Amino acid sequence: MSQVNLRIDQIHEAIERQDDVTLNNLLAEVSSSETARLIEASTPENRSVIWACLDVQKRAGVLKSIHGKVRQFLIDNTPQEALLESLFLLQPDELADIDEDLPGTVINAMIAAMDELRKRRYNSVKHYPDNTAGGLMDTDATAVRADVSVLSVLRYLRLLRNKEGEMPEQLDSLMVVDRTNKLLGVLPLSEVVSLPPDTLVADILDESFQAIPVDASQERVARIFVDCDLLSAPVVDHNYRLLGRITIDDVVDVIQEQADDKLLRSAGLESNADMFSPVLTSAYKRGYWLGINLITAFVAAWVIGLFEAVIEQLIALAVLMPVVASMGGVAGSQTLTIVTRGLALNQIGRSNIPQLIAHEASVVFLNGLVWALAVAAIALYWFGDPMLGVVFGMALMIVLVTGVIGGIFIPLLLQRMSIDPAVAGSVVLTTFTDAIGFFSFLGLAKLLI
Amino acid sequence: MSQVNLRIDQIHEAIERQDDVTLNNLLAEVSSSETARLIEASTPENRSVIWACLDVQKRAGVLKSIHGKVRQFLIDNTPQEALLESLFLLQPDELADIDEDLPGTVINAMIAAMDELRKRRYNSVKHYPDNTAGGLMDTDATAVRADVSVLSVLRYLRLLRNKEGEMPEQLDSLMVVDRTNKLLGVLPLSEVVSLPPDTLVADILDESFQAIPVDASQERVARIFVDCDLLSAPVVDHNYRLLGRITIDDVVDVIQEQADDKLLRSAGLESNADMFSPVLTSAYKRGYWLGINLITAFVAAWVIGLFEAVIEQLIALAVLMPVVASMGGVAGSQTLTIVTRGLALNQIGRSNIPQLIAHEASVVFLNGLVWALAVAAIALYWFGDPMLGVVFGMALMIVLVTGVIGGIFIPLLLQRMSIDPAVAGSVVLTTFTDAIGFFSFLGLAKLLI
Repeated sequence: MSQVNLRIDQIHEAIERQDDVTLNNLLAEVSSSETARLIEASTPENRSVIWACLDVQKRAGVLKSIHGKVRQFLIDNTPQEALLESLFLLQPDELADIDEDLPGTVINAMIAAMDELRKRRYNSVKHYPDNTAGGLMDTDATAVRADVSVLSVLRYLRLLRNKEGEMPEQLDSLMVVDRTNKLLGVLPLSEVVSLPPDTLVADILDESFQAIPVDASQERVARIFVDCDLLSAPVVDHNYRLLGRITIDDVVDVIQEQADDKLLRSAGLESNADMFSPVLTSAYKRGYWLGINLITAFVAAWVIGLFEAVIEQLIALAVLMPVVASMGGVAGSQTLTIVTRGLALNQIGRSNIPQLIAHEASVVFLNGLVWALAVAAIALYWFGDPMLGVVFGMALMIVLVTGVIGGIFIPLLLQRMSIDPAVAGSVVLTTFTDAIGFFSFLGLAKLLI
Repeated sequence: MSQVNLRIDQIHEAIERQDDVTLNNLLAEVSSSETARLIEASTPENRSVIWACLDVQKRAGVLKSIHGKVRQFLIDNTPQEALLESLFLLQPDELADIDEDLPGTVINAMIAAMDELRKRRYNSVKHYPDNTAGGLMDTDATAVRADVSVLSVLRYLRLLRNKEGEMPEQLDSLMVVDRTNKLLGVLPLSEVVSLPPDTLVADILDESFQAIPVDASQERVARIFVDCDLLSAPVVDHNYRLLGRITIDDVVDVIQEQADDKLLRSAGLESNADMFSPVLTSAYKRGYWLGINLITAFVAAWVIGLFEAVIEQLIALAVLMPVVASMGGVAGSQTLTIVTRGLALNQIGRSNIPQLIAHEASVVFLNGLVWALAVAAIALYWFGDPMLGVVFGMALMIVLVTGVIGGIFIPLLLQRMSIDPAVAGSVVLTTFTDAIGFFSFLGLAKLLI
């Protein structure tokens, strides 16, 4: 196992031995986001022990990057005074991300302790929904005018630094605005440091920059950053006035959260899942998904029930029928994955669906020929019944082709119904292929045997 | 459907109408990485038409961001002269990423046309494997000494700019080295522009920076960037000498490629899958996965075959048995997802596996009680056989609990065998839960009915 797995074991052992020195040394070595992962991977008791060992700085970092349910647990178990100390170290946009987990009294105390600038930045971020550019942005964009020289820009930045003590985090470029705060362009710091001091900003500003509308969804923000290889981008209102900037580290968090969310929800788990949430809570949430599956499984069972008399005559059908259903599920899943991914990448439109169907159906038809012959031969060898082999092979062919068609149309239909195909596609498809698989195999047997 | 789906349809329609003006206008509006997605989503004929409309700049961007198989197709269908023009616009590290798709004659012509600096940068990146920090880095790190002032740094950068014409892309910080090129620290440009000109670099350089060893895996690089919210990081050799720098846009590409790769491979598709690859090629690759599934499905069929006599006595068993297997699969998948995700985040170690088992088993046990009663009642109502209900409920309980245990141990075992649990976990688990489900249900029926 890797080094970090070892670390988790060492930490849990130190807790068990109540060896605070070792525990503190181990925790001092890991970054705050790694500490967040360690806390998530611990039982509630151990979470409290680890949390108690962290300094105010580390706690701030953990609060920022830990998953929802566990953050709630940590906040509920920290005295208000200590909590405020850590919160004070977070940026206004980071605070806005987590404040729904904070008790009202803490939020009030936090706002009361803010200076004017900080309060203004916090309020302006709170003004926009979390999952939009406005919720992601920070309002610390440093702006200059276009009619000044590089030397004046340098002087201005030095004054600003002198006044505020530090520069905004991850500052890679300045925004250029006019008198009314309308965005004119972007000025990379690499230009400021490398061009002659008498160069006018107006002559060097990058006008081909990407400005992000404040109400753009976070998905769109992520796409713009990735497509244009941006490090940061200005956020503007509908009149093109500068409101703030988004830096790529926030976008990376969005990309990772979205992928994680889809992974969890596709298995019927809640997003922000907690590995050690209370058993009753987990049981309730997971029971829901098991219940849905029970209904879909009974649909398949009902299809089988239609053919009880046929199975009674030939028990081999009962033995082989799961093979047909399962092969249909696999072939359909492959197409489903391609289509779902294509939908996420905006690659599927009316114009290429017919071509996609033709391609997928041809691929599966060729496979069907090969595997239908194979299973027919196996059935013949196993049960010595040539007609059973024919039925088995034909049913396999039917379920493979309909599975692929389902793999194309099910995500398209779900998308049209505004249901995320990455989350629900697999359940719906499996119900479909199971029903088709059992129906075609047992139905053909009834007709032909 | 969204705007971009419309765009794909408009483009395909313009191609069909042979309306080159509209086609060119449409293509001019989209970024090169979006163009890459459009080309991937087109049939080979349309790919050639779109490619022919692109200017040399756009082609360079497309070559950089298109998936492997389609890139090969485009390269094979472009005259050497035109290809070289686009390649000339790519950075050395980008060239190194795609040159395995280039014919030898093109590579030789490309290297012959490079100036000395470019050739050196290309060769130094080629020197390291693609999937390491060395393969990701660019060697254009701009370095300064520690014993100079901010003013000297500005003068040096202006000279450099004057000589080379432009600054490295996405430069947010300078590297500080000693006489032997050993890395001492990092100097953010935001410091250079905001501190008094007489400040010494030695007094302001950030020594708590993250340096990345040249042989670090790209996964580790991604983790460091995300954990530490970096925009760029220096790459060093084993003697801590500066070799280059990695910027976050390359890391974002790595993160996205890895997620995409796992998604595709978990459905038995090849990574870099091509939506419209030749039918025979696709059929061959996908047939492999269908074949594996056929074997696992026959394992389940074999288990059923052991109980033919029991089924013959009570056909209801054949009707209900897929329900048991399917519920086990769902419960196991939920745990599998949590464990696989935990392994990827290094959250699973010897010390918390027992707690994880206890938690998951309790959760599923509670659910088992509820759903076992439910299915028993359904079986009783459907078939009027109380003993069948008891057997059904008991089998469900067994398969749910063993499914969850499988969901924990299968990914751990696969990881120990160096098989990616995100790719193979689901197949192995389903085979396991199917076999256990059929065996427990039919076995209990044999014993008790």
